[in-house]
Amino acid sequence: MAVDAIGAARRLAPRLAARAAGHDRDGTFPVEDFADLRRAGLFGLMVPSELGGVGASFAEYAAVAYELARGNGATALVFNMHASVTGALGAVDEQTAEALGVPDEALAARDRLLAAAATGSWYGVAMSERRAGSRLSQLATVYEPVDGGYHIKGAKTFCSGAGNADAYLVAARSAADPGVVSQFLVPATLPGIEVEPTWDSLGMRATSSHDLHLDVRVPADTLLGGVEGLALVIAQMMPHWLIASYAAVYVGVAQAAVDAAVEHVNARRLGGLPAVRARIGRADSAVAAARLVVDEAAGRVDAAPGDVDTNRWVWRAKLLAGTTAAEVAASMLEAAGTSATRRGHPLERLYRDARCGSLHPATSDVCADWLGVAALGGDPDRDTSTPRW
Amino acid sequence: MAVDAIGAARRLAPRLAARAAGHDRDGTFPVEDFADLRRAGLFGLMVPSELGGVGASFAEYAAVAYELARGNGATALVFNMHASVTGALGAVDEQTAEALGVPDEALAARDRLLAAAATGSWYGVAMSERRAGSRLSQLATVYEPVDGGYHIKGAKTFCSGAGNADAYLVAARSAADPGVVSQFLVPATLPGIEVEPTWDSLGMRATSSHDLHLDVRVPADTLLGGVEGLALVIAQMMPHWLIASYAAVYVGVAQAAVDAAVEHVNARRLGGLPAVRARIGRADSAVAAARLVVDEAAGRVDAAPGDVDTNRWVWRAKLLAGTTAAEVAASMLEAAGTSATRRGHPLERLYRDARCGSLHPATSDVCADWLGVAALGGDPDRDTSTPRW
Amino acid sequence: MAVDAIGAARRLAPRLAARAAGHDRDGTFPVEDFADLRRAGLFGLMVPSELGGVGASFAEYAAVAYELARGNGATALVFNMHASVTGALGAVDEQTAEALGVPDEALAARDRLLAAAATGSWYGVAMSERRAGSRLSQLATVYEPVDGGYHIKGAKTFCSGAGNADAYLVAARSAADPGVVSQFLVPATLPGIEVEPTWDSLGMRATSSHDLHLDVRVPADTLLGGVEGLALVIAQMMPHWLIASYAAVYVGVAQAAVDAAVEHVNARRLGGLPAVRARIGRADSAVAAARLVVDEAAGRVDAAPGDVDTNRWVWRAKLLAGTTAAEVAASMLEAAGTSATRRGHPLERLYRDARCGSLHPATSDVCADWLGVAALGGDPDRDTSTPRW
Amino acid sequence: MAVDAIGAARRLAPRLAARAAGHDRDGTFPVEDFADLRRAGLFGLMVPSELGGVGASFAEYAAVAYELARGNGATALVFNMHASVTGALGAVDEQTAEALGVPDEALAARDRLLAAAATGSWYGVAMSERRAGSRLSQLATVYEPVDGGYHIKGAKTFCSGAGNADAYLVAARSAADPGVVSQFLVPATLPGIEVEPTWDSLGMRATSSHDLHLDVRVPADTLLGGVEGLALVIAQMMPHWLIASYAAVYVGVAQAAVDAAVEHVNARRLGGLPAVRARIGRADSAVAAARLVVDEAAGRVDAAPGDVDTNRWVWRAKLLAGTTAAEVAASMLEAAGTSATRRGHPLERLYRDARCGSLHPATSDVCADWLGVAALGGDPDRDTSTPRW
Repeated sequence: MAVDAIGAARRLAPRLAARAAGHDRDGTFPVEDFADLRRAGLFGLMVPSELGGVGASFAEYAAVAYELARGNGATALVFNMHASVTGALGAVDEQTAEALGVPDEALAARDRLLAAAATGSWYGVAMSERRAGSRLSQLATVYEPVDGGYHIKGAKTFCSGAGNADAYLVAARSAADPGVVSQFLVPATLPGIEVEPTWDSLGMRATSSHDLHLDVRVPADTLLGGVEGLALVIAQMMPHWLIASYAAVYVGVAQAAVDAAVEHVNARRLGGLPAVRARIGRADSAVAAARLVVDEAAGRVDAAPGDVDTNRWVWRAKLLAGTTAAEVAASMLEAAGTSATRRGHPLERLYRDARCGSLHPATSDVCADWLGVAALGGDPDRDTSTPRW
Repeated sequence: MAVDAIGAARRLAPRLAARAAGHDRDGTFPVEDFADLRRAGLFGLMVPSELGGVGASFAEYAAVAYELARGNGATALVFNMHASVTGALGAVDEQTAEALGVPDEALAARDRLLAAAATGSWYGVAMSERRAGSRLSQLATVYEPVDGGYHIKGAKTFCSGAGNADAYLVAARSAADPGVVSQFLVPATLPGIEVEPTWDSLGMRATSSHDLHLDVRVPADTLLGGVEGLALVIAQMMPHWLIASYAAVYVGVAQAAVDAAVEHVNARRLGGLPAVRARIGRADSAVAAARLVVDEAAGRVDAAPGDVDTNRWVWRAKLLAGTTAAEVAASMLEAAGTSATRRGHPLERLYRDARCGSLHPATSDVCADWLGVAALGGDPDRDTSTPRW
Repeated sequence: MAVDAIGAARRLAPRLAARAAGHDRDGTFPVEDFADLRRAGLFGLMVPSELGGVGASFAEYAAVAYELARGNGATALVFNMHASVTGALGAVDEQTAEALGVPDEALAARDRLLAAAATGSWYGVAMSERRAGSRLSQLATVYEPVDGGYHIKGAKTFCSGAGNADAYLVAARSAADPGVVSQFLVPATLPGIEVEPTWDSLGMRATSSHDLHLDVRVPADTLLGGVEGLALVIAQMMPHWLIASYAAVYVGVAQAAVDAAVEHVNARRLGGLPAVRARIGRADSAVAAARLVVDEAAGRVDAAPGDVDTNRWVWRAKLLAGTTAAEVAASMLEAAGTSATRRGHPLERLYRDARCGSLHPATSDVCADWLGVAALGGDPDRDTSTPRW
Repeated sequence: MAVDAIGAARRLAPRLAARAAGHDRDGTFPVEDFADLRRAGLFGLMVPSELGGVGASFAEYAAVAYELARGNGATALVFNMHASVTGALGAVDEQTAEALGVPDEALAARDRLLAAAATGSWYGVAMSERRAGSRLSQLATVYEPVDGGYHIKGAKTFCSGAGNADAYLVAARSAADPGVVSQFLVPATLPGIEVEPTWDSLGMRATSSHDLHLDVRVPADTLLGGVEGLALVIAQMMPHWLIASYAAVYVGVAQAAVDAAVEHVNARRLGGLPAVRARIGRADSAVAAARLVVDEAAGRVDAAPGDVDTNRWVWRAKLLAGTTAAEVAASMLEAAGTSATRRGHPLERLYRDARCGSLHPATSDVCADWLGVAALGGDPDRDTSTPRW
């Protein structure tokens, strides 16, 4: 990693933090934060260096996400979507591409997308739907071939950065064969894409995770991989992108809650209260532990992506980050007291942001189930009653 | 209790619930809720029947507060302030009055206040201050005698219902002797009372607990008890009004969270998920237990107010209501999932409202400390390092 | 209740406590405790007064069990079995008997058993089996009619007081029709009953809950109700006897842990440590709450046994008693410190005893599931995957 | 590390596990385990290679302790004492020795002790006392100079391996100047050392942590460092030896509990129960996290022993290992059910062993306080009310 992306993220965090209360209050997208990220070259974080990017590892990405989230968790969460898209695209090596039957022109198209990211484009994700959630096999959005490309029709929800991204990763099922799920990177400027401003949430309000209505014709080269039906394969190969990358964000949120409590307690001279000290001491430990688990999972994703053991670490990271963030933020608010519940106080926002981590897929309860199955020698892909994707 | 106040509260709850999201969103005072309470005769709940009121016991009050809070915790919390004022006024019997040296004209004034409540006036509380919190001995608001009454000067915070109450219970220290703390019931219509709209909080947003700036001349008969220096005595005699009455409200909030989760889970057909069932089952138990503790504490307040054992039950009620509400609401949100985090969903609001219970004085951590001291045979009034009032 | 059974239990508790460490160490049955119970007339606690007993209500029984358990949880647990047998027998009124087709001679036999209890006999329970657990429909013990009575053959486990009771309640399935489950009260003196001393457990060691091997001919009048196949009917009618009566015992154990911690902390002058005070204060609250839930459940069992709402309170009581006992005992040991882990220290024993409550059927996890189903409007008898009995 | 000590420990673990139930039942010292450790060369684990030892780092030691504890926590805990003594002796480098004024002959004596360990001697610790606990400044054991050495007189408690070690590290205060605390390595064969078999504990029963009565003359070269008064200095320099080395043991115990639950659940085919899976999944995560924290702390002890940041990691490791072990073992017992509470079942023992971790100094509550102070920018050495040593 030629560029010191982690250092850059750490330097940006206070700027993000300074804007966080306003975007949280108004539910507005942190446009300036993203301008900062662009200037710092972080849109190219997961882009291979030969395509002009930083060429970061997953572990480096996790460290960047953690640092950004200490500033503003919502910004880090949207960035996480872009990093997931570019990271997954960049992770498909030649062997995999050949095995999957990806044609050369699709690889060239992929490289163009990555190069554009390195020079300042960023991509959102339009996968979840109101009824299907994030389960690819249940999507209602469909596509069919048309002259020169495809026609995609459907509605997506939880599209972080909707209205601000340069393109969206859209998952859809073939109208001809519903068992075939494909992904497209749809330019935001095409006609037939409408953002419905539905996002008005408890926490992570600045992500602008609005609904997206699609009735759009896309060129053929927007089909990722150039072959239909790759979405499920990729999802199974890279569960970390759909799960683990949330974890680093929520550990950053948890650490931000401890930091805010420390500042508040010191400013109010409450550090003499034993109950306050005990709360902060236990929170400090919990966050430190969760961070190590995220780091371990991230390192294993780099070393052996998709392996059985790697996936267990990924689920542990997701589970612990989500539960730790929620519990730590709730306790830190109790340590700080009523004055920290006024809107605009960092802890007031962090308490709300932190609760969301366990709810992202795979939820904490689902991760616990999968981990239990795996510890008992089973295979969560096979031995749980509900399909994972 | 001639009037069925509990039944009335239960009937009003759905009306309060229907308005709760709007007042929470805008931070507006639930004016219609209070009109409903007035019409139902609940402003006179704690007023002796011979003065035209309901003459409810503390236990009956707790049941009313619980029912109202199932509709809207914020409304119940403001009502709690009015009930505290009228309840404390009503609870001073002739013997106590004589022992405290309360002159006859003060009792007559007191009776006028209570009679006014019975016919539709309601009173807020202006006790806490930014630096002193709720510790009477640390107040910065002072009063001094002037012609025909007193001049009160200072600033109060956390005045629930500020700008809507008919009068405020104001605690202040004598300018001449700071050790003397007195309480006044100050009519809201007097010149020199200014509401500063500071309340913009994580939860319980509809309480309009704004700041109040006082630079006001009040008639002599607004001095409660007619004798200066009674505030600390009363506080020590009636700790339940300052502590326990919150408890019923937060158990109602916790029950509302379970109810909302049940409705959500059934509507989405998630009841087949074992993790969801387990969360709801454990929450159901915790709320049921907390409610019994509140009822027990309330019954003992009626039977032996201020007794050592009664106070322990009061602290248990406050501690368990606060912690149960926060934990239950957090778990119910996790049971319901991401779709319940959209603003306007009852669980989104309840998650924020519920966190506030532990933070009201005496906080959960303080109650735990007092209970520990008491269980060890000590006296929390004497054996804790910080003064209780 | 003519006899003050609760007062008697309270007076006996210190005697039980003084012997508890020895019986726990050696795993011996508390013979002297049972002699004390006999002398105090407590064997007749659940026997109607017209048959010479105390005629206690379920609520009174729960209060007695709580007091005994503050002395020794194991003694209370064995007594619980006797109380369950006599209580269930006594609870079958004439209408029920008629509805179930119980012949007069069976009622007369029942009355003899109850009268014998009132004069000093006590009965154990031999229901669970190694494979079937406590699920009646899965039992392997069978009976068949023989001249003058029945022949019962099988092996039972977890028979509290085995080798010390005067008779055992034995559940068995008809060899002719496995769907028919009946119960017998088998005199301990009959040939063909062998106690295998298998009980050597983490906690509740003094219950002598050994295995019982049966190859025994019993007179016809030992068939409870005089009609085959009543066992399942009775179990469904009186779930409290199989579940809730444990709850009072474990709340007593939890209270004993708080008491022991208070004594230890005061003796060592550790009460100045804030972390110790906080632990004791929170434990005090949790135990107080659990006790109220047990009392509420017990009162409802008296008022409306077997009702849907009553059963929910019964499950809440079982769940909260089990979890509270385990958590409180673990925290009290941490409050007291290493010196309380020496064998012979009450907290050392209570930590082990307390862990057992959640594991008795219905386990805490099962109660949580049933409560969740019920809160969602379902019927745990119908809507859970596993049969309840 | 020339010898594969971690691999050796992993291979020994099943042998330790096979003997664990017996030593736990009888409270006997695991003599064969220690013979195995000697044969595997592990007595020399912390001895520099130039003195014939393994020359392991602290991180390697932590890994060995974890593996041994998966077999038998008690064996690992006694080994921990020996490793602490040899590790602390080995960690004093020439510069430190010079700074502390350690004479050459004392270094030579130290080297003889280490070389003896490498060839099969092992050392216990006799530091704690009944009243003083582990606080060096409060010890009642005193020493005074006599011809050719010192006379030590006093009584020690919690001496793990008492009666089995080859020598004991004894801390004592100078009779002439109580502010001077020194440490001696007292050969077990000297006259005047008596083991009083007091150890009969809830958990970790095989450690034989009996009392030791000393009235013994020791040669001059048994004074560690050759200079009086070094004990407090060393304690402050190496808090990890007194705190963190416990942590690895208790994470091993926690992992053993998960392993035992998995084996039990699979054998009984309970893996289909969602509540069981959820318990195991959450336990799996918690143990994985605690282990990473121990590893991180251990690595930092190697890199920067005694540093402010290192110490924080040491306290986090101690806190999390203790709380995780207790919570995980309690939950695993609940997952496995009643049949796992029979004595002899691994979970029955592990539930008791696991509770002890939080109670060793520094206790979990103390670690939480120190961590809170440190997070708030304070110095736990200075800013807590009680002296740390």
